[in-house]
Amino acid sequence: MAGHTIRFSPQGRVTEAPTGTLLSEAVARAGIDLVQPCGGQGRCGRCVAQVCSGEIRARSTLRLSEADLEAGYVLACQAVVEGDAEISIPPQEELTRHLTSDRTAGAVSLPQGYDPQSSQTIRRIHLDIAPPSTDDQTDDWSRLLGALRRQASIGNISADLNLLRRLGVILRASGWRVVIVLDQPVQNGNARLLDIGPPETDEMPLYGITVDIGTTTVTVWLVDLLTGDVKAQASEYNQQIRRGEDIIARIIYASKNDGGHELRQLVLQTINGLVDTVCQRARTRPEHVVKAAVSGNTTMLHLLLGIPPASIRLTPFVPVVNQPPPLTAAEIGLEIHPRATVDCLPGVASYVGADITAGTLSSGLEHAETTSLFIDVGTNGEIVLGSREWLIACACSAGPAFEGAGVRDGMRATKGAIEEVWISSETLEPTCRVIGGGKPRGLCGSGLISLIAELFLNGLLDKAGNVNVGIEHPRLQMGEHGAEYVLVWAEDTVHGENIVLNHVDVDNLLRAKAAIYAGFSVLAESVGMPLEEAQQVLVGGSFGQYINVEKAIEIGLFPDVAWEKFKFLGNTSVQGAYLALIDRKARQKIADIAARMTYLELSADNTFYEAFTSALFLPHTDMSRFPSVAQKLARPQEKERAP
Amino acid sequence: MAGHTIRFSPQGRVTEAPTGTLLSEAVARAGIDLVQPCGGQGRCGRCVAQVCSGEIRARSTLRLSEADLEAGYVLACQAVVEGDAEISIPPQEELTRHLTSDRTAGAVSLPQGYDPQSSQTIRRIHLDIAPPSTDDQTDDWSRLLGALRRQASIGNISADLNLLRRLGVILRASGWRVVIVLDQPVQNGNARLLDIGPPETDEMPLYGITVDIGTTTVTVWLVDLLTGDVKAQASEYNQQIRRGEDIIARIIYASKNDGGHELRQLVLQTINGLVDTVCQRARTRPEHVVKAAVSGNTTMLHLLLGIPPASIRLTPFVPVVNQPPPLTAAEIGLEIHPRATVDCLPGVASYVGADITAGTLSSGLEHAETTSLFIDVGTNGEIVLGSREWLIACACSAGPAFEGAGVRDGMRATKGAIEEVWISSETLEPTCRVIGGGKPRGLCGSGLISLIAELFLNGLLDKAGNVNVGIEHPRLQMGEHGAEYVLVWAEDTVHGENIVLNHVDVDNLLRAKAAIYAGFSVLAESVGMPLEEAQQVLVGGSFGQYINVEKAIEIGLFPDVAWEKFKFLGNTSVQGAYLALIDRKARQKIADIAARMTYLELSADNTFYEAFTSALFLPHTDMSRFPSVAQKLARPQEKERAP
Repeated sequence: MAGHTIRFSPQGRVTEAPTGTLLSEAVARAGIDLVQPCGGQGRCGRCVAQVCSGEIRARSTLRLSEADLEAGYVLACQAVVEGDAEISIPPQEELTRHLTSDRTAGAVSLPQGYDPQSSQTIRRIHLDIAPPSTDDQTDDWSRLLGALRRQASIGNISADLNLLRRLGVILRASGWRVVIVLDQPVQNGNARLLDIGPPETDEMPLYGITVDIGTTTVTVWLVDLLTGDVKAQASEYNQQIRRGEDIIARIIYASKNDGGHELRQLVLQTINGLVDTVCQRARTRPEHVVKAAVSGNTTMLHLLLGIPPASIRLTPFVPVVNQPPPLTAAEIGLEIHPRATVDCLPGVASYVGADITAGTLSSGLEHAETTSLFIDVGTNGEIVLGSREWLIACACSAGPAFEGAGVRDGMRATKGAIEEVWISSETLEPTCRVIGGGKPRGLCGSGLISLIAELFLNGLLDKAGNVNVGIEHPRLQMGEHGAEYVLVWAEDTVHGENIVLNHVDVDNLLRAKAAIYAGFSVLAESVGMPLEEAQQVLVGGSFGQYINVEKAIEIGLFPDVAWEKFKFLGNTSVQGAYLALIDRKARQKIADIAARMTYLELSADNTFYEAFTSALFLPHTDMSRFPSVAQKLARPQEKERAP
Repeated sequence: MAGHTIRFSPQGRVTEAPTGTLLSEAVARAGIDLVQPCGGQGRCGRCVAQVCSGEIRARSTLRLSEADLEAGYVLACQAVVEGDAEISIPPQEELTRHLTSDRTAGAVSLPQGYDPQSSQTIRRIHLDIAPPSTDDQTDDWSRLLGALRRQASIGNISADLNLLRRLGVILRASGWRVVIVLDQPVQNGNARLLDIGPPETDEMPLYGITVDIGTTTVTVWLVDLLTGDVKAQASEYNQQIRRGEDIIARIIYASKNDGGHELRQLVLQTINGLVDTVCQRARTRPEHVVKAAVSGNTTMLHLLLGIPPASIRLTPFVPVVNQPPPLTAAEIGLEIHPRATVDCLPGVASYVGADITAGTLSSGLEHAETTSLFIDVGTNGEIVLGSREWLIACACSAGPAFEGAGVRDGMRATKGAIEEVWISSETLEPTCRVIGGGKPRGLCGSGLISLIAELFLNGLLDKAGNVNVGIEHPRLQMGEHGAEYVLVWAEDTVHGENIVLNHVDVDNLLRAKAAIYAGFSVLAESVGMPLEEAQQVLVGGSFGQYINVEKAIEIGLFPDVAWEKFKFLGNTSVQGAYLALIDRKARQKIADIAARMTYLELSADNTFYEAFTSALFLPHTDMSRFPSVAQKLARPQEKERAP
């Protein structure tokens, strides 16, 4: 079949594509990077392209306005090539590099009574080996084993072929005085030889990394394995975002052609880039990193390992593996020491992964005396209820709305994002706080929670989330998707267009918050415990650290318990991975948590759906669950003012 | 530095080489394959090239006659480029593909009471796995482990990442009824998952291979792992020969630049080619081969694994590893099932390798009731003395003379080789038996032994190996290297030149036989036992199978014991590897043999050197050691005649 010529401006690229090719495919083939947060499902509306001329047929026009359609806009993932065409690709939202500082990761301290000597599985041992002679012609490897047995009481040890290939040369070059590095996961158990070098190696650093692979953000810490000190931290967007903003979109993408391979490469690029960053900051080199503890949700770990995640998305929602075996950096593609042990922490189920088992450890829930709630707020919300006695977990797909996707003016928490909003109850005029100052570009998650709470408390939104069209106010106007609230007028924004919140946006946000609240309540109900009896609400996730508790309760995202019960912990997943990296007992505890955590599948019956439906209101259909909000609504507004 | 232009005829190749380049390097760069049996040491004289014109400086002219030098011949490995040149490369001796039939490998039978079920480490198990449901969301891998525990009582099992990547798809595609293949080296011990497939896999063959890597010949057997049946056998020259004909030459070559890498590729090509051959003969495919047992001398196994063998050659002669760990085919580069277990059998020392431990098992020496001698005749001669009670071994570098190298008209035992010679005591005229019939091209090892014995018994050679110039006979003439015996006149040979045996040849052969006999006698002396007390002389090695015992005793290669004590066993190394492949108990026995075999280093003191010097005569300085030969020399010749 002859191809058609597709020209792209302003990039000036040209490609050939036969009839029936998806325009997004043609864009990719032309080497142009098109953002597709929903993974090419026509859901997010981000991959717009303008057909200047030629034959392109649009299959779906969802999320495009009539004006857009008239101007020739199509969604690239929903448009099909039928002839030669000239296409204009608007500048893509930049996937800004976003380095979270230490505060987003949260502080972490060494476990009490921590002794690297007994806790760390990585050991460095100096060996004096008797040189061979005609009286003792023992081979090099047996000679090394003998010295190790006598000098360090280590019996069973293995080495890979690459190390055996270098063994003879190193032993002779170093005059039979060597330093070896080995990994011994179980005390007095089998050990694996990681490296061998001349005596000078003794002065070289011995590093490990903890990696948390979030759906949105990847975090890497560089740790001195001999002291447990965190030497550097860095975070960055997971480069997979451009191929789908949530887990489901990624799984769909992974199932297409070479999608799984591409996603694996993207997350590896992200991690390897972060490893370079932390190594540069600590003035060391990646080859000095000999151990990695990796946390992340089950899908992220499947994608990292190149294991097809398809079954995670399909009923009965079963992953291929919850507890990956120990692997080496070379097998996985991590650019650290090739023989470095890579320990992917164990998960519990498809939607309760290593991030939760590690988080449960670092949050302290695992040894809480009283029943506590632990929630990891992210694109996927995971909730654990329990104490040192028992643990039950569930997961609810909140979607990426709190991370700015699926919302017209939503964006990530970077420069230009409105992160907090106050609305005057007298003038109904808003005041915004913008990250980095300056003109705003959109709203991030905490800004959206804040805005909805303000609109609701000021009567601009009703309980069902509908804009109160009875109120006459210039900021209330009819838009493409019905009534909407204009938060910032076009002249005060970066892009010269109004920043608004429309009905579709509110709907997506209500679904997100309802999913999380329903998770809380079904989990509590399943053990017959009222939510308010939880003694602590431990909130994990770097996003969760910026949520204003009051407003989160006002919209019904968090249960209405005393504010002092909330503890914002930051990235509990990376903190747990850190503990696993430095302490073999902590690593064992995470395995124990995975083994004893009961997983409650929310899709199994109607209970969750009913709880979700009830929570689709502001703050909830059952106002008795939110007494503090009921009180606020009953009396005259006493809201704080913007400073 | 500007390069000189070097033209090669008749190949018509051209290359550029700067001043100082070895001519052999330039030949290789031009893509011409030059045979270098001695590894480029100027020792074998095979890499002759004729300088037609131009500036080539010869560093050494050893092994070139004055006529050769006048004609412009140089040794390519000893000649240096100093300007443009035109070089003629004579046709190389063809490394003929030589398929030994079953008789060279020797017959082998299943061990008594052999039960594949309990002896074989490879198991194929049919598993019915309960499909997941919302009531049981156990991950795929745990589900497989559970079924394996319940249905086959196998607990600890590991799988590599590539298999985990395919696991989910296979389980679902096969409706949770699968066949798995695993390797469990120790009964009830840890198992490694090799493969998983649909129920049909049950009917697929399950093969193993035994590989014997000789310095000269590589042998591969294809074995049905479920029955122990040998399905096909094939042998071929080790392609490494072109880079050195003995162990020392190979080690030297391996130490140069990328020599080790090249030698590894050459032996892999040889083995992989043989695997193809045996698979074609058995109408199967290499991917059905899931296990390999590999035998060979220590240097050959180092080269296969890519481990630098340099220390084997240097005092105190210590290898890097005698017992390589279990590896996979993919790690090594064997083109069979990528996850196939490759078990390199254990050796004892640098010159007593897996070929001897495996051979000791298959020769029966390991459970001999009475003291026996076991000798593996090869480029390196290895000798074991002992019984079920004790084992002592030594190695003596015989050199490749018996394999036709280092001898003017020597060649391998292929078509055109004289394999037996008879000399008339009356006419002193010879009769020859030629492999494949027709005109001869040269002499192979057994022909050389035969010829020397005949010359000696007929008084044409004296005890010291000197040609008796006192005898007037047309076949005794003066050659380049002194007096020589013309075995075949030019008109009766393939190449139209005389086939002769000269003084240098005799010297090399005497050194070879003296080394082996000295090995015998020093070993026997070391335990205070006269050689004649050995109850059996077990002779291994495919070369050893064709030796005429009588003539071998006459020249003093073998001790003078009753002929019926000799047992010619063929390739004991591959036979032992076969037993290790099919029987975990046999494999353990080889490890036990390696552990209990004492290695006697012959270079440690003067004893060997003295024994060697005494054996440098025909048959020996001490004739009392060879009473049967003394008797023959004393009475009139009663030799058999050619039929």
